[in-house]
Amino acid sequence: MSPSLAEHVEAVALIDQHAHGCWVTPVDRNRFENALNEANTEPLAAFDSAFDTQLGFAVRTHCAPLLDLPAHAPADEYWRRRTELSEAELAHRFLSAANVSDWLVDTGFATGVADPHTLAAMSVGRVHEVVRLESIAEQAIRMPGDFIAAFDTLLAERAATAVAVKSILAYRGGFVGDLSEPTEAEVVEAAERWRDSGRPRLTDRVLLRFGLHRGLQLGKPLQLHVGFGDRDADLHTTNPLYLLDFLRRCGRTPVILLHCYPFEREAGYLAQAFNNVYVDGGLTINHLGARSVDFIGRLLELAPFRKILYSSDGFGPAELHYLGSRLWRNGVRRVLEGFVAAGEWSRGDAVRVVDLIARQNALRLYGI
Amino acid sequence: MSPSLAEHVEAVALIDQHAHGCWVTPVDRNRFENALNEANTEPLAAFDSAFDTQLGFAVRTHCAPLLDLPAHAPADEYWRRRTELSEAELAHRFLSAANVSDWLVDTGFATGVADPHTLAAMSVGRVHEVVRLESIAEQAIRMPGDFIAAFDTLLAERAATAVAVKSILAYRGGFVGDLSEPTEAEVVEAAERWRDSGRPRLTDRVLLRFGLHRGLQLGKPLQLHVGFGDRDADLHTTNPLYLLDFLRRCGRTPVILLHCYPFEREAGYLAQAFNNVYVDGGLTINHLGARSVDFIGRLLELAPFRKILYSSDGFGPAELHYLGSRLWRNGVRRVLEGFVAAGEWSRGDAVRVVDLIARQNALRLYGI
Amino acid sequence: MSPSLAEHVEAVALIDQHAHGCWVTPVDRNRFENALNEANTEPLAAFDSAFDTQLGFAVRTHCAPLLDLPAHAPADEYWRRRTELSEAELAHRFLSAANVSDWLVDTGFATGVADPHTLAAMSVGRVHEVVRLESIAEQAIRMPGDFIAAFDTLLAERAATAVAVKSILAYRGGFVGDLSEPTEAEVVEAAERWRDSGRPRLTDRVLLRFGLHRGLQLGKPLQLHVGFGDRDADLHTTNPLYLLDFLRRCGRTPVILLHCYPFEREAGYLAQAFNNVYVDGGLTINHLGARSVDFIGRLLELAPFRKILYSSDGFGPAELHYLGSRLWRNGVRRVLEGFVAAGEWSRGDAVRVVDLIARQNALRLYGI
Repeated sequence: MSPSLAEHVEAVALIDQHAHGCWVTPVDRNRFENALNEANTEPLAAFDSAFDTQLGFAVRTHCAPLLDLPAHAPADEYWRRRTELSEAELAHRFLSAANVSDWLVDTGFATGVADPHTLAAMSVGRVHEVVRLESIAEQAIRMPGDFIAAFDTLLAERAATAVAVKSILAYRGGFVGDLSEPTEAEVVEAAERWRDSGRPRLTDRVLLRFGLHRGLQLGKPLQLHVGFGDRDADLHTTNPLYLLDFLRRCGRTPVILLHCYPFEREAGYLAQAFNNVYVDGGLTINHLGARSVDFIGRLLELAPFRKILYSSDGFGPAELHYLGSRLWRNGVRRVLEGFVAAGEWSRGDAVRVVDLIARQNALRLYGI
Repeated sequence: MSPSLAEHVEAVALIDQHAHGCWVTPVDRNRFENALNEANTEPLAAFDSAFDTQLGFAVRTHCAPLLDLPAHAPADEYWRRRTELSEAELAHRFLSAANVSDWLVDTGFATGVADPHTLAAMSVGRVHEVVRLESIAEQAIRMPGDFIAAFDTLLAERAATAVAVKSILAYRGGFVGDLSEPTEAEVVEAAERWRDSGRPRLTDRVLLRFGLHRGLQLGKPLQLHVGFGDRDADLHTTNPLYLLDFLRRCGRTPVILLHCYPFEREAGYLAQAFNNVYVDGGLTINHLGARSVDFIGRLLELAPFRKILYSSDGFGPAELHYLGSRLWRNGVRRVLEGFVAAGEWSRGDAVRVVDLIARQNALRLYGI
Repeated sequence: MSPSLAEHVEAVALIDQHAHGCWVTPVDRNRFENALNEANTEPLAAFDSAFDTQLGFAVRTHCAPLLDLPAHAPADEYWRRRTELSEAELAHRFLSAANVSDWLVDTGFATGVADPHTLAAMSVGRVHEVVRLESIAEQAIRMPGDFIAAFDTLLAERAATAVAVKSILAYRGGFVGDLSEPTEAEVVEAAERWRDSGRPRLTDRVLLRFGLHRGLQLGKPLQLHVGFGDRDADLHTTNPLYLLDFLRRCGRTPVILLHCYPFEREAGYLAQAFNNVYVDGGLTINHLGARSVDFIGRLLELAPFRKILYSSDGFGPAELHYLGSRLWRNGVRRVLEGFVAAGEWSRGDAVRVVDLIARQNALRLYGI
């Protein structure tokens, strides 16, 4: 007898196509709670607790049993038990339980978290690198001589073993305005200005556009942060519809729209409109917790089923690498069971779409 | 005993207040699949299939039985069976099964599809014409002499037997900016510029605004493409809220907002805010397939129930003319059954709202 | 045995953190129906009826029993019965049934409705005042001499006994553009211009910004109209994401985003991003009626549970003060029962979140 849809969703090994490292050294409770709040860039107010959010509730519901606690364990109890285990032990428990065969790891922002080698050594799945274009630029500007040559050399080196590149343009001015490729002269001039300024952070639009197009020209899939993130970004300027002109001209390099909240329907439209555009709901699913089922439903609107990907976007607490998987499995099961119960989809189609999103699309896209 | 809500929804004959012709000659599979993708303007990628989308699944679920296949028949089988039937036979099967008493047909873009006479000859419902304002302008510019007089003469001729006019301003620069009526001098000058350019396609804002206001002055309902469509439009500039100034000044002519995704809640707001504004979810419902039930729910938020209309926006494959009806019936039944089950609506009110949207509102609005 | 979640939701006394007065003198049916349409600023069209909307259906469903009619009583019957009762009797019935312990009353727009003293005299809960900043300015400009001094004096007097201030900047140009504090010289000049114009209504951006910052500096919670309201506002300019720069610089004064439709997900993001930002779904919940359950679900996405508030935004018909409570109780019960049934939340957590939104957050925020 064929397994039920629910059994199939539980069993499938995922490809987590966008994640970061998990913590390697112990943190205090404030740091833990702040890591459960994505948008705020300040310490949480004294009256608040990140445990009293959808993500906090999801941690207590789904992660507590992996720490040998009952589901819904109180926050204090959860925290107490968490401090009894090393980060290595936590990482091993949560990452194993995620049932992920391959992690694509963005190494662009990695302070205090495991690097790909450390992750690989945990034997919880294969590890592949995603290179952040802005980090390449920020490294190139510190090298003497020709910025363009330095950027190209660094990118070639790093990309040789990477499966994708990523841009956080969303955080560096957003998507509104000209995103065409600048001329060499413009790049040279902008690089000089930046070098002279002594600022380590890349915010110059000319150089951001340069990096984006160098990324495109590489031909490897280009991941783009879209929507939900911390408040440094002007969220309204990260509506992916502002990418329309860019996408109309960017050729065939696959472009993956990450996170997307609250623009997931717009992102799905773009995935239908362009052969090379993909969508992913990582980060958002974790933060919506019990509400992620509705978000997963909205990801299944206009986007063709061969253009939707899974990720956790876990960063910091290993809980996030596991929860992404747990909540996606719960959510996609409930959405697809609904379609089947209504007579709109067959069970066989539902199983097939689970496989596409869980791993087949990523296998095809990244060639891993 | 009164029929159940479900029986009532099945039985009601619809007025499809915005559709196009269906194909009259056979197509190949690529053309068929591309016709199931609204947003993309290029051939689908080799790795993709329009059958693996919500619309594709809905075709296999609901249209297969009309081709004597089981629901959810595999894509290849569906396609094979479809090629065994003539387009006339397909059209007859699907259009009859839609149970539509009146089709309002936009004749503005009609390459390769049935014209109103052909549709009427199929005896699957009465046919009424909707005249596209941009097509009138593109015809007028090819006539010698005074553009304004030519436009007015053509519009008067075409509108004499039409029930409504339509504008695709959304595709010609969107809604952002001045939408007031231009002066005669501005129109004359813009028409000269256009005629001299030799370009057949109307993109000049002055002339688009001219046509829009000529349409308004006619007093017949004015249908406006809003939101979802192909990627030639800048989707973010088709947010109907950009029409606020226009609507504040456009008088009493009814304005119907078509499609509306992902701005259906904004469109519903406008239907509450203006006595002459109506909303319609055609096109979107087909493309959302199993997810259209949620969209139909969102159409039932701020819009007064006497301001909501049904359409399929079917164009090309006759499947679309049927699916619009099938999915709307399924969706509205599920949404309203939910309201009744929760004790929020009475069954009698639900039946009445079905009738309003299915046909009463359109009867009143178009006087047919 | 502990009460069920449903029993708990029914029993909890609410703090209605944003309401207005209810009518004190009889109205005719046209005025009643127009009061059920928030967005339209003209009389409803002859073919339309505000009873045929989600709000109208909710009135017939939930308010009819309080007028000794069966639920879903026909509109004519509802209206006939309503005219048999005095506004005082209507107010007493509806306001008592709301089970509200504290009403925070915006006194800025109060023509024809009960003032706080009249409401307090009804003994249906404690009454607290919310002072509207634009009203202070419009009063100050009519006083001779120094505008700034007059504004400060009036604000200090009114705020002495008020629990919060409110701005309707959304209606006076929206949120796009500079919202920094103007210099004293700029304020003096703008005030002179305004005084000379003789116009009673404040629309000058310099003075609006001045009032907003004076409100902030007071330190009491600042309520902001966001999104849904009448069509005088350009709805797209009231997206709260346009407040990002303002919020990044506004310090620690609590800012409460009211109504929020269709931007409730954006508002929830801001509540996560800033320690001092809160969200509220008043007004919207009434107007969505049977659909408010989905809206309440969306309010429970990114916003931390200690940052969500309840209000009705009732104004005019006393039905609205009751319906807000009725629909919120129904909606939050259904949403949270769904979370519990899915195993995502514990029943105890659900009860606790009900208490937070119903009253604990408001108690902490307003210190009442």
